[in-house]
Amino acid sequence: MPDSQTKTDSRAPRLLLDLEAGPAGPLNDRLARALREAIRGGRLAAGAALPPSRVLAAELGCSRWAVTEAYAQLAAEGYLEATVGSGTQVRRLAAAPPPRRPGAAVPAPAALLDLAPGLPDLRAFPLRGWLAALRAAAAGLPSAELGYPDPAGHPRLREVLAGYLNRVRGARADPASVTVTTGATDAIGRLCAALRGRGGRAVAVEDPGWHRIRQVVAAAGLEVVPVPVDDEGLRADRLDGRTGAVIISPAHQFPTGTVLSAARRAALLAWARSAGGLIIEDDYDAEFRYDRRPVGTLQGAGPPFVALVGSVSKTLSPALGIGWMVTPPGWAPEAGHPAGPPVLDQLAFAAFVDSGGYDRQLRACRRSYRDRRDALAAALATRLPEARVSGAAAGLHLLVHLAAGADAGAVAARARAAGVRVVSLDAYQVEPGPPGLVLGYGNLPGHQVEAAVDRLTAAVRSAR
Amino acid sequence: MPDSQTKTDSRAPRLLLDLEAGPAGPLNDRLARALREAIRGGRLAAGAALPPSRVLAAELGCSRWAVTEAYAQLAAEGYLEATVGSGTQVRRLAAAPPPRRPGAAVPAPAALLDLAPGLPDLRAFPLRGWLAALRAAAAGLPSAELGYPDPAGHPRLREVLAGYLNRVRGARADPASVTVTTGATDAIGRLCAALRGRGGRAVAVEDPGWHRIRQVVAAAGLEVVPVPVDDEGLRADRLDGRTGAVIISPAHQFPTGTVLSAARRAALLAWARSAGGLIIEDDYDAEFRYDRRPVGTLQGAGPPFVALVGSVSKTLSPALGIGWMVTPPGWAPEAGHPAGPPVLDQLAFAAFVDSGGYDRQLRACRRSYRDRRDALAAALATRLPEARVSGAAAGLHLLVHLAAGADAGAVAARARAAGVRVVSLDAYQVEPGPPGLVLGYGNLPGHQVEAAVDRLTAAVRSAR
Repeated sequence: MPDSQTKTDSRAPRLLLDLEAGPAGPLNDRLARALREAIRGGRLAAGAALPPSRVLAAELGCSRWAVTEAYAQLAAEGYLEATVGSGTQVRRLAAAPPPRRPGAAVPAPAALLDLAPGLPDLRAFPLRGWLAALRAAAAGLPSAELGYPDPAGHPRLREVLAGYLNRVRGARADPASVTVTTGATDAIGRLCAALRGRGGRAVAVEDPGWHRIRQVVAAAGLEVVPVPVDDEGLRADRLDGRTGAVIISPAHQFPTGTVLSAARRAALLAWARSAGGLIIEDDYDAEFRYDRRPVGTLQGAGPPFVALVGSVSKTLSPALGIGWMVTPPGWAPEAGHPAGPPVLDQLAFAAFVDSGGYDRQLRACRRSYRDRRDALAAALATRLPEARVSGAAAGLHLLVHLAAGADAGAVAARARAAGVRVVSLDAYQVEPGPPGLVLGYGNLPGHQVEAAVDRLTAAVRSAR
Repeated sequence: MPDSQTKTDSRAPRLLLDLEAGPAGPLNDRLARALREAIRGGRLAAGAALPPSRVLAAELGCSRWAVTEAYAQLAAEGYLEATVGSGTQVRRLAAAPPPRRPGAAVPAPAALLDLAPGLPDLRAFPLRGWLAALRAAAAGLPSAELGYPDPAGHPRLREVLAGYLNRVRGARADPASVTVTTGATDAIGRLCAALRGRGGRAVAVEDPGWHRIRQVVAAAGLEVVPVPVDDEGLRADRLDGRTGAVIISPAHQFPTGTVLSAARRAALLAWARSAGGLIIEDDYDAEFRYDRRPVGTLQGAGPPFVALVGSVSKTLSPALGIGWMVTPPGWAPEAGHPAGPPVLDQLAFAAFVDSGGYDRQLRACRRSYRDRRDALAAALATRLPEARVSGAAAGLHLLVHLAAGADAGAVAARARAAGVRVVSLDAYQVEPGPPGLVLGYGNLPGHQVEAAVDRLTAAVRSAR
């Protein structure tokens, strides 16, 4: 602290400011920071008068400019105000109305073991690699790129995604057919809006299937037509000319884990060709296939009939808000539709894919997910040998079939009470079906697998 | 290059790989990068066979693991494939269909001098400060924050925004009343959707006004009711019970530049109270007021009747995709509505505001915009003394009134031909009005002001 014992001002409180706290920098910045902290911490109360700049400058042994600059900065931030005749004061604010709804706080780290589907391993997110990609994207960014973004996505990311999807997912995309979105549901929502704009009225969805897809279809003002899924995937023979589109996850169906059979792939394309319908291919989980090569996309087999949809929500994190779609001619969104992700994030993702960082991350995750799946399957085979397990060849979840007549909802509730989160299959069903549990292992640390299955086993046994 | 003259493999081409290009790192990473570049550059053509890993490892004098790892990485990226009996090859890809629409390239740096409204000074974007804020947001980020984001926005940013808007914009917000959006039009779109969900049918907008707002209202399925603007702002007496909401920019109306008068503010609040209507306050440009203190928000005067909407599009950059709204009880968006910006961006913006960086930027911009406005007004007064100028007290644009009967559209076209972009007032009008030109100086470098006004003057004179 500077020596300032000899000077005081009768109008103002003595300011005890710690100018050395926080990062180094110009004195005016450090002074502004110290004043801000003093006001936030209540040491400088609302209405309190500050010393005249001349006095504080003398006390601190600094230029008067540094003090007036700090005062001006805090006035701009709304902490201080100048009143004619009264100098500079801490502002009094009208009290904000009391909170009306409980603040939606970040969920506390759950004591529950998490076997619910929907999340990848958040602990594995490559934060350093992502920050490096952001820096790479920012380096040499022309200022014109900071204007209004291209609503279809940044041309650079569209180019990188087209190449990537062609190489890795067997797609047939060119940059002009790619739209960058904020996620898969955003893409599906835009396609539904386009369908409705063409006079479409109904969309077929897999049953069972991911509930958010049904919500997005309904929110677009379209009828949701559930179509059953069997061992070969969606029952393509149930589609007719009434539905303008069908949304499927051929690589690894959620939640059954089925891979769409070759016959069904052909049947779907035949339906699209004859009925003029659009196949919306949700390439969910395709990146994580453990036992053989991933299946190529339907889009690659029939580009004019398929819109391919994907995102990083299951490969990196849903918090990134990055997705895409490859659309046939005529299905690209109209101008004026909402913009995609922030430009810097788009360019960072392009750099991340282009440098091989994305695939490095996928390979590392694939290994660790496969180990976790093996551990989960082994634990289930040992402890619940009577339960059939399916859908484990890929993805981040598997399906445990319960005995006919079992109450899967009750099992899930008991499991939750015993400290493990699982979801009953019927949460994803429109038409009732046989009882089952959907077990997601993406976000469950490997060392918790055995404990989670122990608790689950106890719940299954006690619910009988 | 390692010495490998002595060993070759008859099946494979000699690989000339530059393992020293690019950043240092493990040999497998450098090898993968060199192979990737060779494939992309065409030096390794589709179908070309790669040396067996044993051979290449011997050639390079490295472990076989490094080679198989590099091959595996490039196989994951789709550049290589392994065929039984043929070893590792460069993959042949199905040709992508030819581009169907011209790639929406980044607009080339225009030779035009830019006096069109809509953009802030993109050259002034604090890229280093923003990257520092991203790093600060990432430091110590708990992995749970990388899950699905709170659709209302990250609690930390909502808290920071509530405090900021209360201090700086005279709002009365608490964190629970704040929703983070991807921009002002996103916020307006959500409010329109909510209005429609309540059975609302029509929304009043300012005429003249920003055309995007009319588009957003119409896209929500609501009728657009234009209400005239005079010298005191929106004609509040023209509102009736038919319109469920009115969208206004009281701080600095676009494009007239009018500040809503105290009498009109009171009349608007009275309308909202008696008709049960919602005032949507677009706090557009409020940060840039040059001649006196910014006007406090209407929201602060009547929190139950006003939704306050803002964004960083005019203060930092539209490419960031960050906006917000403060809503009265009952107007907060439903669960399941689209998510806001990526979590890291939200936390970065919170850190940027919280550290004073946002206001530092605003203060710097305010000074430079004021200088530019002064230069523009002076140049107009000298060269076009007969033209009245209005709306210059704030914001990033002003309005030049042309002589009655002048064809503003023709002037704008001639100006464009002469190398300066300006927009005719009638581009923003629903009902025809007196002729004028809207001049935006946000994105025009200060040294171009005189040249732009020279060209504009010539266009006005020649269009007579």
